Amino acid sequence: MTGYFFGDGLSRAMIDLRSDTVTTPDDRMRDAAQSAAVGDDVYREDPTVAELETTVADRLGTESALYFPSGTMANQVAVRVHTERGQEVLADRKSHVVKYELGGLADLSGLQVRMLDTDRGAPTPEQVAAGFVEEELHRPGTGLLCLENTHNARGGLAIDPERIAAAAEAAHDRDVPVHLDGARVFNAATALDIPVTELVDPVETVMISLSKGLGAPVGSMVAGPESFVEDARRTRKLFGGGMRQAGIIAAPALRALENVDGLERDHEHARVLAEGLTAVDGFDVQEPETNIVLADIAGTGLETEGVLNRLEERNVLATAFGPTTIRFCTHRDVSRSDIDAVLERIDDAF
Amino acid sequence: MTGYFFGDGLSRAMIDLRSDTVTTPDDRMRDAAQSAAVGDDVYREDPTVAELETTVADRLGTESALYFPSGTMANQVAVRVHTERGQEVLADRKSHVVKYELGGLADLSGLQVRMLDTDRGAPTPEQVAAGFVEEELHRPGTGLLCLENTHNARGGLAIDPERIAAAAEAAHDRDVPVHLDGARVFNAATALDIPVTELVDPVETVMISLSKGLGAPVGSMVAGPESFVEDARRTRKLFGGGMRQAGIIAAPALRALENVDGLERDHEHARVLAEGLTAVDGFDVQEPETNIVLADIAGTGLETEGVLNRLEERNVLATAFGPTTIRFCTHRDVSRSDIDAVLERIDDAF
Amino acid sequence: MTGYFFGDGLSRAMIDLRSDTVTTPDDRMRDAAQSAAVGDDVYREDPTVAELETTVADRLGTESALYFPSGTMANQVAVRVHTERGQEVLADRKSHVVKYELGGLADLSGLQVRMLDTDRGAPTPEQVAAGFVEEELHRPGTGLLCLENTHNARGGLAIDPERIAAAAEAAHDRDVPVHLDGARVFNAATALDIPVTELVDPVETVMISLSKGLGAPVGSMVAGPESFVEDARRTRKLFGGGMRQAGIIAAPALRALENVDGLERDHEHARVLAEGLTAVDGFDVQEPETNIVLADIAGTGLETEGVLNRLEERNVLATAFGPTTIRFCTHRDVSRSDIDAVLERIDDAF
Amino acid sequence: MTGYFFGDGLSRAMIDLRSDTVTTPDDRMRDAAQSAAVGDDVYREDPTVAELETTVADRLGTESALYFPSGTMANQVAVRVHTERGQEVLADRKSHVVKYELGGLADLSGLQVRMLDTDRGAPTPEQVAAGFVEEELHRPGTGLLCLENTHNARGGLAIDPERIAAAAEAAHDRDVPVHLDGARVFNAATALDIPVTELVDPVETVMISLSKGLGAPVGSMVAGPESFVEDARRTRKLFGGGMRQAGIIAAPALRALENVDGLERDHEHARVLAEGLTAVDGFDVQEPETNIVLADIAGTGLETEGVLNRLEERNVLATAFGPTTIRFCTHRDVSRSDIDAVLERIDDAF
Repeated sequence: MTGYFFGDGLSRAMIDLRSDTVTTPDDRMRDAAQSAAVGDDVYREDPTVAELETTVADRLGTESALYFPSGTMANQVAVRVHTERGQEVLADRKSHVVKYELGGLADLSGLQVRMLDTDRGAPTPEQVAAGFVEEELHRPGTGLLCLENTHNARGGLAIDPERIAAAAEAAHDRDVPVHLDGARVFNAATALDIPVTELVDPVETVMISLSKGLGAPVGSMVAGPESFVEDARRTRKLFGGGMRQAGIIAAPALRALENVDGLERDHEHARVLAEGLTAVDGFDVQEPETNIVLADIAGTGLETEGVLNRLEERNVLATAFGPTTIRFCTHRDVSRSDIDAVLERIDDAF
Repeated sequence: MTGYFFGDGLSRAMIDLRSDTVTTPDDRMRDAAQSAAVGDDVYREDPTVAELETTVADRLGTESALYFPSGTMANQVAVRVHTERGQEVLADRKSHVVKYELGGLADLSGLQVRMLDTDRGAPTPEQVAAGFVEEELHRPGTGLLCLENTHNARGGLAIDPERIAAAAEAAHDRDVPVHLDGARVFNAATALDIPVTELVDPVETVMISLSKGLGAPVGSMVAGPESFVEDARRTRKLFGGGMRQAGIIAAPALRALENVDGLERDHEHARVLAEGLTAVDGFDVQEPETNIVLADIAGTGLETEGVLNRLEERNVLATAFGPTTIRFCTHRDVSRSDIDAVLERIDDAF
Repeated sequence: MTGYFFGDGLSRAMIDLRSDTVTTPDDRMRDAAQSAAVGDDVYREDPTVAELETTVADRLGTESALYFPSGTMANQVAVRVHTERGQEVLADRKSHVVKYELGGLADLSGLQVRMLDTDRGAPTPEQVAAGFVEEELHRPGTGLLCLENTHNARGGLAIDPERIAAAAEAAHDRDVPVHLDGARVFNAATALDIPVTELVDPVETVMISLSKGLGAPVGSMVAGPESFVEDARRTRKLFGGGMRQAGIIAAPALRALENVDGLERDHEHARVLAEGLTAVDGFDVQEPETNIVLADIAGTGLETEGVLNRLEERNVLATAFGPTTIRFCTHRDVSRSDIDAVLERIDDAF
Repeated sequence: MTGYFFGDGLSRAMIDLRSDTVTTPDDRMRDAAQSAAVGDDVYREDPTVAELETTVADRLGTESALYFPSGTMANQVAVRVHTERGQEVLADRKSHVVKYELGGLADLSGLQVRMLDTDRGAPTPEQVAAGFVEEELHRPGTGLLCLENTHNARGGLAIDPERIAAAAEAAHDRDVPVHLDGARVFNAATALDIPVTELVDPVETVMISLSKGLGAPVGSMVAGPESFVEDARRTRKLFGGGMRQAGIIAAPALRALENVDGLERDHEHARVLAEGLTAVDGFDVQEPETNIVLADIAGTGLETEGVLNRLEERNVLATAFGPTTIRFCTHRDVSRSDIDAVLERIDDAF
């Protein structure tokens, strides 16, 4: 980001903690884009996209995977392929698919979401049982359970495999499949220090984002059984996600998969940031589990907008997450010294 | 209902407390059907339908009203006319429009329901504020608040006008209109001993059912501003609700409007029934406010199905409302001695 | 219809040839409504509705049938049950389901209609073959062929069973089922002098209207296989077509089934009318096959609206069917002398 | 494409005439990808995407433009933003938006397409008038006219500006806006030897593809008024078209805009190819206007599949366009000597 000059004559570079989507590709990714072998992926002839899909499927332990221009499309297509019109989808009230995808499940696929209020973003088996609806004359049946891990809106919570498996089992007992929005599932696996497959094995399909913590410029994947992915490929075309020489962006995405090890560093930065913020007057900070730090700033006597403005004046960007809640998100393009600088600037502001 | 013979040689008539929809038209209604002036209502030439619509609008204090073959269609059309595709609708999680209309808001109109967990079926202004979503890049805006009075699934609660007005005001403050599912709004007004207009005035549109406690064979109405009703007429055609010589059923529906005074009797029967059920071992009875009695039968050690079977063996019908919850609904075709008989039979069963 | 007084001091009753939907129930129907045995049809307990459904199924030679408040809903539900979202429906461009149902197939069920330009309202096998789409990456598959008999917008054409069977066979060869909009299929069978089953046997499902030529106040039916009708029952609930004591209108509808023999009289009236209209200056009249007479009035130098106004001034009502096309529809409430009067008045007008 | 070895020991490279979408990016495009300035385009901070959008808007003479991952999404979003649910869209029966987008207008946006059978892909004013539907009780109103230029399925026809303007005027006279699927509009302008703005000026919005003849790896644009593009941005998010550091693909797309001049060469190749094919026994060739050559191969006694197989055995790829129709499409990656080689091989095959 460009630097700005302040009253004291010093330039201070903008530090952007709004989202891990803002990362820019590094030289290895850019070189990969330049030299990518490509073909027309609508005809399934792009070798780089094919390699990416195989690599992701292998990594996640699924039969197959499919590349998408965005995580929103990946989720929307996956949910649609799992369901029939007029069914219900069980999902946490604050999950991305419910809250940040413009009501697409209803609008594009005619699905009613039964919103669950869960403790850590994943329902207990009892909550699945209570939310499940048997199809009958007056009621749409439950067609899918959606999970999210890490759970963004609840503060980047890393949900443990036992909880995931228990929710999935409760769904499976009722013949309901499970889709995992794993946009940040590598963050979850990193935080829990387990193979990512432990989080993916209990569910039918998983979405992963390559353009968040991993740093790819563009793209998300849906991984699952081969027949599912075939159906998803057709539905992706319907949604307008069929791209041509997509190898140009699949190549850097392949490189991004090598960045999983770096996520631990982002988590460490989040912990340092959270610790520092706790000391700020009026900040009530949720202990971070991954790369997301939520701070309730009600104690400052200001509203979110006011605090964000004060931060922006000092070249720190974060995101509004509610009337008195701010999200800070660490990522590859933020260094330890950036975190120190952020804390200094916030200290200066409050 | 037909009688059944039991082991003791006595015939005991079936007493049907499943719903107030089961009432059969009386002779006045039947005669009205026979002699109704009719025309083609798709051409707006049925004088009896026109009279019904004018009468209902007058009674509810609205500009206009429209006749529908069912309450489900009336609700679905009203919500659709209020909204645009891709918007959100705020509604109590247990409201009819969410729970018993087959997910139609999503399926037929592409609307995402933001389900609220309310105390008495109507959200507080704070809940409206918290559930309200401002339209932005990631989020559908809130297009409508739906209320329900009496609130069926929460036990026939009669929601007071202050609560209705407060919820409506919170919506209006955000430029969100309000639709009231008043299938049993006359029950609410009766229980609260107020004019029904006090419950209708704070909202833009109201649905009333004529075929529940009022006893009409067929039909519900949507009442509201004239321009709204014009749009609803066209949407009713889309949904297949345009009927021809509908005066045949509108005529008994007009007679049914005279039955409002009888609702107090149904409420009295519900109180007697509830009091009697409280004495039954293992029944935990919610104090009724109108014509609906909810009993939690967990204490019997049986599940709903088992209790309903035991009742049906003794010629009493009621409705499953959950794994351990049963709904009894009083209505015009149930007399005080029927209630006494029900209590005797249940006493005999437990 | 009420009479009007003219300049010559004579009262001339309005003669309404707009549609066969305008018929009013006779005394037998009204008495049937009054004395109908009823129950709650949502619970499947209305004996008169059950009798109507059994009677219609028997008459049409299908396993089962279902009662609807309108033909539009009956068609829309039938098509939806036959298809999956995202499929195509083959139908004549001028068929009712395409032209007069508010785009419901797309709006409510997400179906793309492939409009066929057919000769007599039913496609040839070659047209079915040409319109058929095999599901592939870019294209929705064809999910249904819709036929209409008699074909209203093409002039009440009575399509012969060979043509129906050939179209259906071409669809079946491609695993595509066939729905027949038979709103006036009894008119077709009457005109062709064959049992109605000859027109119904080749297709999976048929819709019949009871409130057109047969004269019932309200209602249409979908008839077909039992499992189909079960699904249709649930979808009818979604659309808001679940009515309660519907026996009140099912009873006159049962009587209406006895009116099939009277349709020949309506056809005779149409022939007389057409012959008379042919003599009118500037009228180009399509030879009627059933109860519908189309006249192209371009030769009068007037547009449709002008001709209709001139007729209405003389107490004759007909329907605009295009910029220079007028439809006259004979029905039970129009007598031979009414036809003579219509011809006199038109003669007077032109 | 890789070479294959044949019985005669010679390697003959595959020549791919299936589509102009198969072009692969050249070094200038690849270098542009490598060095692109990028940002998060969901936050509207990608300078390269912004430059592309400004450049395209300038080139087309519109206020604004928006980048999409595919032409299908660009069309679907544009049509949706123009319309309301339940409206009709007028479009040629063979247009891409009707034929090759999986029925998305109905499925995703609830729109009924009124398919027109046009002469050269664009309706005459009379056809627009005849297809136009005024909204009324039974009928959805016409919400949009869709044109396509060049018209792919009719053989890459370059529709002249007079015809475009006349169709658009007929729509505008009825308050119906016009969207132009201009995936290959630069081919049309080139063939007609006019500025592209002459083809775009008469319509409200236009879609252009960057990944067809222009050779970009990924992307299409919608250009139009600023407020329209703002709405389209939100709907693009709903469809899952919000990409992050999209500059990586926008940069080569910017380079692709410099390739407009090369289209004339593709057209020349198509003329040479057509001339040569005319001499092949059993080939009936439509005279090409742009880069598409349609050949009816019925005269060979073979079906499409058989001819395509015979070509593929000789390392020539083309596309099935009907039971006896084959499409050959020239593009940047096909040289004059490739065309000669194709003609030789086909000569050898027939």
